[in-house]
Amino acid sequence: MKAELITIGDEILIGQIVDTNSAWMAVELNQLGIEVGQITSISDQDEQLVHTLDEALQRADVLLLTGGLGPTRDDRTKKVLCDYFDSRLVLHEATLEHINDLFFKKRGIPVNQMNRDQALVPECCTVLMNKMGTAPGMWFEKEGKIIVSMPGVPYEMKYLMTHEVLPRLAKVSGRGKIFHKTVLTTGLSESYLAEQLSAWEDQLPAHIHLAYLPDPGRVRLRLSAFGHDEQTLEKEVWAEIEQIKQIIPDAIFGYDQDSLAGVVGHLLKMRGASLCTAESCTGGYLAHLLTSEVGSSAWYKGSVVAYANEVKTNVLGVDPKMIAEHGAVSQQVVEQMATNVRTLLNCDYALASSGIAGPDGGTPEKPVGSVWIALASPEQTISKWFTFTNNRERNIIRSAQTALDMLRLVLLNTP
Amino acid sequence: MKAELITIGDEILIGQIVDTNSAWMAVELNQLGIEVGQITSISDQDEQLVHTLDEALQRADVLLLTGGLGPTRDDRTKKVLCDYFDSRLVLHEATLEHINDLFFKKRGIPVNQMNRDQALVPECCTVLMNKMGTAPGMWFEKEGKIIVSMPGVPYEMKYLMTHEVLPRLAKVSGRGKIFHKTVLTTGLSESYLAEQLSAWEDQLPAHIHLAYLPDPGRVRLRLSAFGHDEQTLEKEVWAEIEQIKQIIPDAIFGYDQDSLAGVVGHLLKMRGASLCTAESCTGGYLAHLLTSEVGSSAWYKGSVVAYANEVKTNVLGVDPKMIAEHGAVSQQVVEQMATNVRTLLNCDYALASSGIAGPDGGTPEKPVGSVWIALASPEQTISKWFTFTNNRERNIIRSAQTALDMLRLVLLNTP
Repeated sequence: MKAELITIGDEILIGQIVDTNSAWMAVELNQLGIEVGQITSISDQDEQLVHTLDEALQRADVLLLTGGLGPTRDDRTKKVLCDYFDSRLVLHEATLEHINDLFFKKRGIPVNQMNRDQALVPECCTVLMNKMGTAPGMWFEKEGKIIVSMPGVPYEMKYLMTHEVLPRLAKVSGRGKIFHKTVLTTGLSESYLAEQLSAWEDQLPAHIHLAYLPDPGRVRLRLSAFGHDEQTLEKEVWAEIEQIKQIIPDAIFGYDQDSLAGVVGHLLKMRGASLCTAESCTGGYLAHLLTSEVGSSAWYKGSVVAYANEVKTNVLGVDPKMIAEHGAVSQQVVEQMATNVRTLLNCDYALASSGIAGPDGGTPEKPVGSVWIALASPEQTISKWFTFTNNRERNIIRSAQTALDMLRLVLLNTP
Repeated sequence: MKAELITIGDEILIGQIVDTNSAWMAVELNQLGIEVGQITSISDQDEQLVHTLDEALQRADVLLLTGGLGPTRDDRTKKVLCDYFDSRLVLHEATLEHINDLFFKKRGIPVNQMNRDQALVPECCTVLMNKMGTAPGMWFEKEGKIIVSMPGVPYEMKYLMTHEVLPRLAKVSGRGKIFHKTVLTTGLSESYLAEQLSAWEDQLPAHIHLAYLPDPGRVRLRLSAFGHDEQTLEKEVWAEIEQIKQIIPDAIFGYDQDSLAGVVGHLLKMRGASLCTAESCTGGYLAHLLTSEVGSSAWYKGSVVAYANEVKTNVLGVDPKMIAEHGAVSQQVVEQMATNVRTLLNCDYALASSGIAGPDGGTPEKPVGSVWIALASPEQTISKWFTFTNNRERNIIRSAQTALDMLRLVLLNTP
């Protein structure tokens, strides 16, 4: 079964609001095995709505419309839909009573004309009671297709979807199912991953699709399986993921909404171990990622953000001669930062960063994007040199992700 | 002039990502007087893209396409566009060289086939160099219409729009002018602001529009003036801003893309003063905001992220008895954090935070969202108690913004 989403109104077209409704609706529809083929945002103009409906009905079985149902004069949707289905507007008593209850009764004043108009609905539709607001939802059927109109206010739309639309759609869809799983990888570029996975990808059955979704510092692999039985699809997708694991065992750090900081925190917690950080180029971003995790105080103690060299020497006890000789961005300095902060904050593990985030500060030997990362553990101190990008924001993100991944891999190899 | 936006790829259709690109692009196009008539999200299927292009070209003068340009096999856009314009793929040497510089030269390995394919472009297009990534932008012209294809990664799209697409479109649009100015405020809620500005808003001329755009910790006021002469519009908008300044003199911290951290940094730099931080509930986020500013090493020295109480006592020298008596989230502790880190890191100013970000840790007297913020300066130490929200992420953001604003107001009153 195929659906399309149509959002009506200028707010999205002028960029005043971001369309978050569509993503929410798509996820809900997918769970019923209904695929979203297109999302269209249009303004409140009659011809554009009629044309969009005509077009969409050629491609899809279900159209979900949001927006264009407010009481103000720029909202034309209801009248257009009424004409589109050759119907006429009639008063819906239950809606009028609901509007009266919601706003007017408690103030002791009669319903005004603008709100009375909201209780008018096309005679041919099934009214979906909107307990969250004044504009009712409307369910139309025409030549085996379903068209639903809802308000665009997110909590009103979500109420109507959850209580009225999705239960009805579940009854009429019922055949096709979709199962999605997203595998989160870090440390490998999109093109390198694609090369490594190419042979496996070639043998994927036709009903399982793969998509590469790159972010700074990670690539997500989304597997989508289409079929009739959700449990079978889930089993098939996991069997494919098992194969990916064989090819890139170290790169996979989690699934779906997992974060690298959360995964590292979980590994620390399982081992009863604690972590601290000493940050130069990441400038507190590592600490921020770690403390953004709920419950991080169980395994994270804190950070010394040693942005100035005098903080590296005075607080972290890095040898000033070492900075003079090798520079602050050097293996010697980053390793001392890690080992010294580990002692100072009395932790099992310590991560340290020192690099040139940019845009200034680069040299021919150490260009912008050069970063040293060190990890001090109970066993040893290790460090690695990286060259990232020429973009400050991305260098900070990638340095932090890389540091977390370094710790993740060491923890995985520590019982 | 009319434009349409077309996003290509399954991520939006399955609800995995929210389409934030379109809102950003719409705002930028509006600033050039170009209206966005429709936004369409489609999948990576050849026929759907061709049909969407055909339809959109009947309505609009400019089509901006995002997505579908990655090196992996699920991205079909370039081939479809090449056929659509009856062209053939040719190697674009400058792009190949750029890809080589970006990834391969410094690793001493040759460009792989997949990345080489990214340097192939339809012969008939103007290549827009994408300095932020490997997929080039492509500018096509056909029968007086403009079609531009860009990658969907937000920072790559924004780079190409800002440096290549918008300057070119500004030349060809050219009639109606729009002047936008966004006034950035902090410390006041949207509803309080709206009340304060209500009388001023009533006298706004019809061709100047006001929009309230709230974010956590700040409210942006966007003024948009529509007319024929940009200089006149600019003068009119600034005259209105002068009036706002009279009404809320302290709340305005900057304009357009200014950040509170950048504004604070500028004030420090002007005074030759230095700053450090001691963070508990902000967990490094304050340091991250400050070090995200280019050139922050001139005025920011670092932070002690004292997430665990033992770091507050051992590194910052907070009296353990004080923590036992008043709790870590208290005026006494946060003031000691500020004064002690100021001495430890040898700075003119120090900010400190201690609060309950949530979701756990709240008590009846100190519910989730309770935050103490202190500022130690050469003259004195001041502190304030706030109650923010019950959302962890927003509490961290608002605590950091509030701390920065406390320093901004003190600096403004210090010659």
